[in-house]
Parts: sequence; structure tokens; C-alpha cells
Amino acid sequence: MTDKSLITQRVSALRQWMRNHGVDAYLIPSTDPHASEYVPAHWQVRQWISGFDGSAGTAVVTATAAALWTDSRYFLAAAEQLDGTPFALMRDGLPETPSIADWLAAHTPKGGRVGLDASTCTVREFSALADALQRHSISLTDAGDAAAALWTGRPALPGTAVRIHPLEYAGQEAKEKLAGLRRLTADEGCSHLLVTALDEVAWTLNLRGDDVPCNPVFVSYLLVGPDAATLYANPAKVTPEVAAYLHGEGVGLRPYDTLETDLAGLGGATLLLPDTANRRILTAALKCESVRLAPSPVAPLKAVKNDAEIAGMRRSMERDGVAMVRLLRWLDEAVPTGGVTEVGVDRKLAELRAASPHYRGLSFETIAGYAAHGAIVHYEATPDTDAELRPCGLLLLDTGAQYDDGTTDITRTVALGTLTDEERRTYTLVLKGHIALSRCRFPDGASGTQLDATARYWLWQEGLNYGHGTGHGVGAHLNVHEGPHQIRMNYVPAPLRAGMTVTDEPGIYVSGRFGVRLENTLLICPWRTTDFGRFLEFEPLTLCPFDRRPLDAALLRPDEVEWLDGYHQTVRQRLLPLLDDETDRQWLIRATRPLCEE
Amino acid sequence: MTDKSLITQRVSALRQWMRNHGVDAYLIPSTDPHASEYVPAHWQVRQWISGFDGSAGTAVVTATAAALWTDSRYFLAAAEQLDGTPFALMRDGLPETPSIADWLAAHTPKGGRVGLDASTCTVREFSALADALQRHSISLTDAGDAAAALWTGRPALPGTAVRIHPLEYAGQEAKEKLAGLRRLTADEGCSHLLVTALDEVAWTLNLRGDDVPCNPVFVSYLLVGPDAATLYANPAKVTPEVAAYLHGEGVGLRPYDTLETDLAGLGGATLLLPDTANRRILTAALKCESVRLAPSPVAPLKAVKNDAEIAGMRRSMERDGVAMVRLLRWLDEAVPTGGVTEVGVDRKLAELRAASPHYRGLSFETIAGYAAHGAIVHYEATPDTDAELRPCGLLLLDTGAQYDDGTTDITRTVALGTLTDEERRTYTLVLKGHIALSRCRFPDGASGTQLDATARYWLWQEGLNYGHGTGHGVGAHLNVHEGPHQIRMNYVPAPLRAGMTVTDEPGIYVSGRFGVRLENTLLICPWRTTDFGRFLEFEPLTLCPFDRRPLDAALLRPDEVEWLDGYHQTVRQRLLPLLDDETDRQWLIRATRPLCEE
Repeated sequence: MTDKSLITQRVSALRQWMRNHGVDAYLIPSTDPHASEYVPAHWQVRQWISGFDGSAGTAVVTATAAALWTDSRYFLAAAEQLDGTPFALMRDGLPETPSIADWLAAHTPKGGRVGLDASTCTVREFSALADALQRHSISLTDAGDAAAALWTGRPALPGTAVRIHPLEYAGQEAKEKLAGLRRLTADEGCSHLLVTALDEVAWTLNLRGDDVPCNPVFVSYLLVGPDAATLYANPAKVTPEVAAYLHGEGVGLRPYDTLETDLAGLGGATLLLPDTANRRILTAALKCESVRLAPSPVAPLKAVKNDAEIAGMRRSMERDGVAMVRLLRWLDEAVPTGGVTEVGVDRKLAELRAASPHYRGLSFETIAGYAAHGAIVHYEATPDTDAELRPCGLLLLDTGAQYDDGTTDITRTVALGTLTDEERRTYTLVLKGHIALSRCRFPDGASGTQLDATARYWLWQEGLNYGHGTGHGVGAHLNVHEGPHQIRMNYVPAPLRAGMTVTDEPGIYVSGRFGVRLENTLLICPWRTTDFGRFLEFEPLTLCPFDRRPLDAALLRPDEVEWLDGYHQTVRQRLLPLLDDETDRQWLIRATRPLCEE
Repeated sequence: MTDKSLITQRVSALRQWMRNHGVDAYLIPSTDPHASEYVPAHWQVRQWISGFDGSAGTAVVTATAAALWTDSRYFLAAAEQLDGTPFALMRDGLPETPSIADWLAAHTPKGGRVGLDASTCTVREFSALADALQRHSISLTDAGDAAAALWTGRPALPGTAVRIHPLEYAGQEAKEKLAGLRRLTADEGCSHLLVTALDEVAWTLNLRGDDVPCNPVFVSYLLVGPDAATLYANPAKVTPEVAAYLHGEGVGLRPYDTLETDLAGLGGATLLLPDTANRRILTAALKCESVRLAPSPVAPLKAVKNDAEIAGMRRSMERDGVAMVRLLRWLDEAVPTGGVTEVGVDRKLAELRAASPHYRGLSFETIAGYAAHGAIVHYEATPDTDAELRPCGLLLLDTGAQYDDGTTDITRTVALGTLTDEERRTYTLVLKGHIALSRCRFPDGASGTQLDATARYWLWQEGLNYGHGTGHGVGAHLNVHEGPHQIRMNYVPAPLRAGMTVTDEPGIYVSGRFGVRLENTLLICPWRTTDFGRFLEFEPLTLCPFDRRPLDAALLRPDEVEWLDGYHQTVRQRLLPLLDDETDRQWLIRATRPLCEE
């Protein structure tokens, strides 16, 4: 928690800076120059200026007013953190909340200028805001990074060393990936491609880093020309070994901060620029012959895993399954004796995962939500909120790990003792939704939007629903959230293709009481080609029993029971040989026996 | 069938006309100035120039070449009809088929001019084609209506009289509808709204006509200003009674062909123009102060039926159900004795429907497809193709009617005798899909794209699928296909709302053998508001038993049997009191008994 008088001082200093730079308002988004979901500390300017530490939010400061927009996940936390600061909380999504543009129109003079650091705003976001402001005769301008002058003690750009992601895990050489990208770039009528997303640079070059918690990426850009490719990264990050490797793959190295100058000097190039590139880059690139904005061609390639990546994902799921089984067995024994808390569960699981030499940390912050905490979709236990687990009710555990050769994402909801009928019924309906999607066969190229309702159907029949998406892609020792495909109600046109990973995670959240979410990571596989086209199916990659104790068997159909028994048989076959401890083995055998053997 | 030498003469005459008008190519779309699905004979220019009589197709003529694009429904018919004419058949959707723009680029000089009658092309279609041609340095221009000069014996504009759709059926006075449209127009910042779709004019003014087969509409435009509204229609269509009615609703009358002049003279108006308006209108409207192109505000209002319209739809469904029951009973008796054909079924059903004084003809051309003909999705029996029904296999019957107070659309697939296991299995799977959608409850505002997979799920599990949409809106004594909502895989964002009608019509087509489609028209109703939001459900409006003889009961789950029994009970309760003939009554009782009573 930041001292609130410090926030007031920072806002005053920013207002002085705004006067010196001739802007009437300054806007501070939440992301970094790479549109990252996880942002290195160096770019956490919105948190520095406001004290609000949620993952999503936009701060705006004028000469006399200040406000911060965030979404419903953070209404409570933001209200507390902004209280006593110059920032008014703007609850995004409520009908009475003005848009940023409308609020700015009411708080800046007509013909006024709004500034921001255009490197922390995508081309699309900048255009949308500029259009909205223009209707009020207000202009939007790249005023540069105010924090560069004002933030004393600002964390440096992350400086961790880059490491090579071995070919046995990557499955395809960087030079081959570059050749493929060159073909796609030429197909778009362009000579050069700039890769701006950190996981896309890492995937293309078979490199990994530790610049960001949970995401094994490093701060960089990659420029792919017809004959040469250049990595823009802090040279201190690149060991001689990695430099030699890059040279062998035909990739040159230039300092991170020379990209804009180099782009401006490209001359007759026609540049393919992802539409998630930041606005500052577009400005530099507009000095090329021409710029074509388009969805990144890297994302659909990265999303389809090759055999080596799939094998690595399977090994990671086995290790993760062993850790989960040991955790769940431990929970069964430890909870009744008392003293186990949500944070303790997180810590215990990390310890169990660390038994694998391939473990490289979490893939996202663990959500361990007991009872009412389970209903908070993005709950993260802190020492302040940490609840002791008692032998009743449900624990929702959503967790994932990074391993050298894969990434995991799993959610189980576990009965700690006595349950209410509502808890059992809800658990069973969520499992029905999970199963309906997991066993769905579908035409090649269907989008996640088209499949989403299969996971919700049985919940809808009972008047239940959930506000989040049903599934997202998972990287191969990369970001746990990756596109371009998703399974969700909002329209996401990217087709589902064989080789993609995607999660299956329906849930129900009963505010103030409990939450249920059940998630496996799935692999999309070819099923069969019939007279009606090519069909795909899912194979669950995640290996861990679903808790059978909360099941209301009367709500399950025979085909659903058959699916669950089949899945549990696979889990037993794959994990039993990996368990040494006889008590763990007996636990797994009991947890995976057919449902009829109660 | 047009004499093919005539086609050659017409193309020659068109080429002379093109030289006189300075265009290198002339393009003839399939629609009319109102983007109608059913086109009055006057505007069937594409059929006149090419001889091809399918509902979809675009003809293009250059000085030396001619080609016609149509989709897979018409490949066979078009090949036959174009053989021996100057037109090459272009099979739309095949990878080897060039786009119209690419073909034109290869067949016209660089810097050339392509002409069309811009009144038969929507604003969006014109822009898309103009953009595509511009990449080849070819311009697209409104060259006027070549057929006006060349088509001797061209049918006049339809001149049927307009009739008043009584308030007891319409449920809301035209002046109220106009007031609502004025509010929506002002909300969009506009002073005037032009209604261009024929069913939207008819709905707004509570008028109907007979200008087009199957659709009870009349050729007209409606201009809604802040204080006055003007109907543009041939004055001969408007009886003194209708003129007096219009006057009472505050609607003036001007000749159909004065619209463009009037638009050009609107001066300081800001015009809201539907994006399905034709390009010629936009040209005229651009003389206003400003034009705003947007989806029509009429469509979403028209789609939500009021209580009077719903009551009329229910009455129509009862009459249609009685006719269908009598037809199905007759089929059971007549087929084994021989001599019944597809065309005969169509004729018999029309005769049975005509028993109602409210009957006003078909709502679309009947599809009666026996055996292999059932696999042709848009099959229409002609004397050439008409097949005799034998006492085996399946008859697919997709049919609908217009009544004074409603419109129907129903498909039943009926066993005429012995069936194969594949036919029984396919029939049962299609019924499972139909039931899954029909009993689906869903969040208010979900789109049809989000629900579509519920009807396909059980088909996909067996590697089956269908290429058409699952459902469309149905008008209230208006067009049988109406939007803005649809249930289909392609993205259609329009939300499903209580009061809308929508069909539920999954199908499977086994080429060369048989087809199954099962369709009810449904009403969307409020279900329940829970802690998770407002939920909607469907109520089947269509009243007719599903043939139980092709069912493979082993494939049905208990909840599906329960749904079918419940639906059949409703059908019996509603139709039995309306049947006089005791044999009909006994047939209905047998057809609607619970499935366990075999």
C-alpha cells in the first residue's frame, strides 16, 4: 500500500509537468509497449501515480481533477486504495459511469490537448480514443513518458538473461519459423514484419526469459526483413552463447531503444505491423514506404503446437498431475486437523511442484478461494484475507505452472467436508457443462464463439450462467493466456484448428457463499473426415481426478458418467506409475474408481 | 425455358447499348431496388438476359465475353440453362472460380468502365465491388437500366391494390409506429428516415399488398420526416379507402418515381438511410445536408411481435396444423394405393389450407422432396422432376402459408413405408438437434450464432452436419424470412429478444438417397429472472405431430422423450377441437400418444 500523501505529491508534480508540456490532461493506461497482460515493474506507471494495484485500470489527471476507471473485479479494492487520494473511482460498465472521453470533455477546455505516453497504447486504442475526443474538439497527442522525469526510484527495465529454448522442446528451428514468417509477410505484399508481442518474439526465436512474473518472456522486438532478422533487446541480456546461437539462426542484435530510429531509416520497405503494436511505433514506421496494419501472422502459427511441443505439454501435465494428487491427498488429511489456510495451500502446491527439476514457477498467481472467497472470480489470497480451511464447504483451486517444456492451467473444486444441496447441485451442473464441451466433436474451423454454448447449456437450463469466457489457448512454456482463438460468448472469429490447446473452464459463483469452477486444458485433435467434412475433437491434457464427493449422481446421464469414468481411468493409468508413496497411490486409486463403485 | 437464340440476340443488343453508353462491361444483379428476396417480374432482368431462372445469380457481359455466377444450389440447373448461350457458368465458392472483379480485370481494358443499374445494387454491394475493381484501375458506374431500352414486352411494375392490415391483427396503429421511428431517427441525430425494404414499409403503415408471390408487400418507399411522412407508391394502387386511411395516419402520398427528386430537394435534412438501400438512392440523398448509413431501425421493431400479432400467429398455426394433419392422414391412405406425386402433395395441401377463409396463399414455394429429392436443399418439384411417392423411404415436406393474421413455416419428414436403419438413425439425430434447441433456455440478448451449436451438437457427435442456417425470423402476415436475428454458424450479432419468432430447422442431406429436416416456428418468451440475469425460452408455435414411425427410440434420452410427449399433448389439445372428421381425429390421437404406447 502506497502512502496516500505520496500520491497527492505525485499528482501535483504531474500537473506541473503537464503545464510545462502544454497538455490539459494526461492519461495513463495499464499496459506496456508490447501490450503485455503481465507488465514489468518499470511500466507500472498507473500504479505509481494512483496507488491502485489491480491488473486493469486507466488513470486520468487534469489540472483540477483526477479519476481512475476499472472494472467490477476491482470495485472494492480500488475504492479502498483510492480513498484519500485525488483520484475519483470510475466504475467501468455501470450505466452511470461516463466514458473517459465524455469525462475528459467535461473536465478540459474545448480545443484542449490530452497527452499520453503513446508507447503504452496500441494503435487501435489510440485511434478509438482520438476519434471519441475529436467529437468534443479535443486532440490526443503523444506527450511522452511523464514518469521518466517524475518517478524517483523507478525500477529499471528488467535485465534478466535470455536463455535458449532447446530444439527438442521447440520442435522447429528458429530459421524455419523465420522462413515461414517471410512467406506470410510476402503474401501480404510486405517486405518486413515487426514482431512486437513478447511471447511472439520468444516463440519465433526459440528463446525464453524471466523479465515478467509467470510469463517466460523478455523485453524485445523482432524485425524480420527479406534477408535478415534483427532482435532488439538490451545487449546485457544476451550471453555469448545466445549471441552465437542467434548468429547461427541468421538473427542480428541491436539495442532495444534503437528500434524507432531503425524503423524510420528503413526507406523503401513495406512494413507489416501487428494491430496490437503501440502507437509510437506506428509513428516511427510511417516513415517507411508503406505500413500495413493487420493481425499478427505469428499468433496463429504459435497457437498450433507441433509434436515436440505436444510431447512437452504431456510431460508437464504428468508432473503437474502428480503434484495435484499429492496436494489433494494432503488436503484430505490436513484440513480436519486444522491450521491449513488458502495461502498455505498455494505454498504447499509450489513445494510439491518444485520436486520436479523441470519446474520454473507459476504460470499465473494461484487462486485458492475457500467458501465465499471461491465466488470472487479473480481472488488472490493475501495475508489480510487469508482464510483457514474448515472441514466443510468447497475450496476452489485455479492454478498453473511453468515447466521447461510446457505450461499448465487447471482448476479443481474440492469438498472439504459437509456440503449443502445447492453446492452439490451446482458442482454437478458445472461438471455437466465441462463434460459437454470436452466430448464435443465439431467441424474443422468452427470458432470458439460457436462452441461456447455447449458448456453453458445445462447451466442455462437451471437459470445459471457465468460472466467469463469458457476457454483460452495455453502456450508451450509460454504465456498461459494465448490467442488468437478463445471459447467465449463474445465474437472471436479465429478458427479452432488441430494442434491448438484450449481450456474448458465453466463455473458458477454464488456471491457471499461459494464458487465452483472445473477446468482442464484440452488439445484439439483430428477426429474423422466424413461425407459432411473434416471433424475435430478434444483430448484432455490435464491429468487430475475431479472430486467425486460433491457429485449429485442423479443429475448425471449415463453418457456423462461414462465420460467421467473414462477420464479417471486415463488419469490413473498415466499418474499411478509416477507415484512412489503407497498412500498417494491408494488415494489415486480411490479417487479414480468408476462412479458406480461408491 | 427461354429460346437460346433469343438470349444471343439480347446479349448482342446489350453490347450495342454498352457501346452507345460508353461502358466496357455491364453487370446485372438478381435483386430489385428494395433488396427483396422475391423479385417482381419487372426486375427479373438477369433471367431475361441469360435465361437462368434461379433465385441467385449475377450476369456480366463484356464486348467479347459473358459469364454468370451462381451458388452450388443451382450448379446443375444453371449448366443446363446456360448451355448454348453466350454465358459461361461461374461456380461461386469453388476455389478455381474467379471473383467477378478478377474476371472483369481479365476481360476489360485497364482504365475501363463497368456499368450497372445502381438501383438494383445495395450501397454496401456497390462499394465492395467498386473497391475490388479499383485495385485493377477499373471504375464502376451507374449506367442506368439497359433493360428499359432493350426488353420488349417487359412486365410492368406490379399494380395490385394495397389493402389495410386491420388494427386487430397489427396491434399498434401506424401513427404510433411512426412516432417510435421518429424518436429512433432523432436518437441517431437525423431529421428524416427513409424506409426502403418492402416488408418494412408494409409493417410500419399496417398495409399489405400482392405485388410479389408469397410476400404480401407492395412496391413503395416511405419517407418519415419530423412532422410528416410520405408513401411513395403508384397512385393507382391506392384506393380512396386506403388514401383516407393514410391521411388519418398523417401519411401523404407521392408517385413512386418521384422519390429521387424529392430526396434531392430535402435541403437541410439529415437523412438516416438503411445500409440495404440501393446505390441510386444514396446518390440522390447525398444532396441533403448529410446522410447517415446504418442498419434499419425498423427491422428490430418489426421482429418483436406484439400480443395481437402473437394471437394471429397462433390462430394461423392452428389452421395450418389442421391442414397438415389432414394432409398427413391422407398421405397414409393415398400413397399405398399409388398415383400420388410430389406436385400432387403440394396441390392437396393448398386445397386443404384453402378451407380456411383466412388463407392467402403460400409463404414460399413448397419443397416436397421424395427420397433422393429430399437431399436437394432447395428442391422444387416441376412437371419434369415430379416423382411418384412409393410406400417406402422418406418424404421431406417444407411448406408455409400466408393467412390474414399470420405466416407459417413448417417442415416435417414422413415415413411412407419401410425405412433403412440409416434413415431411422438420421431422422432421430435430427429430432434430437431440433429438441435441444427448442427446449434451450438462454440469457436475454444472446445471439443466434451463440445458440446455433445446440441444434448441431448431437449431429456433430456422429460426424454429420448441414450447410444452411438453423433458424430465421418469420413475419406476422409478412415475409417468411425476416431479420435482423438468425440462428446460424456465421456471425449474426442481432440479439434474440422476447416476442421474436424464429424457426428451428436442423437437417441432414444424404446426397442421392434421402433428406431429413424437422422444423417448427418458435416464439421467444421470457422464462425467469435469476441471480444470474434474465433468461428466455422458446414456445413452439407450430402445431403438427412429428412422425414417430422413423424414430429409433434407443437414441432418445428420457428428457427428450418427455419433451416430445409434452409437445404432442399440446398439439392434440389445440387441434383436436378443430377437427370434425372422426378419421382425422383418430389419426391425430394415434399420432400424438405418448412414445411409450407403441
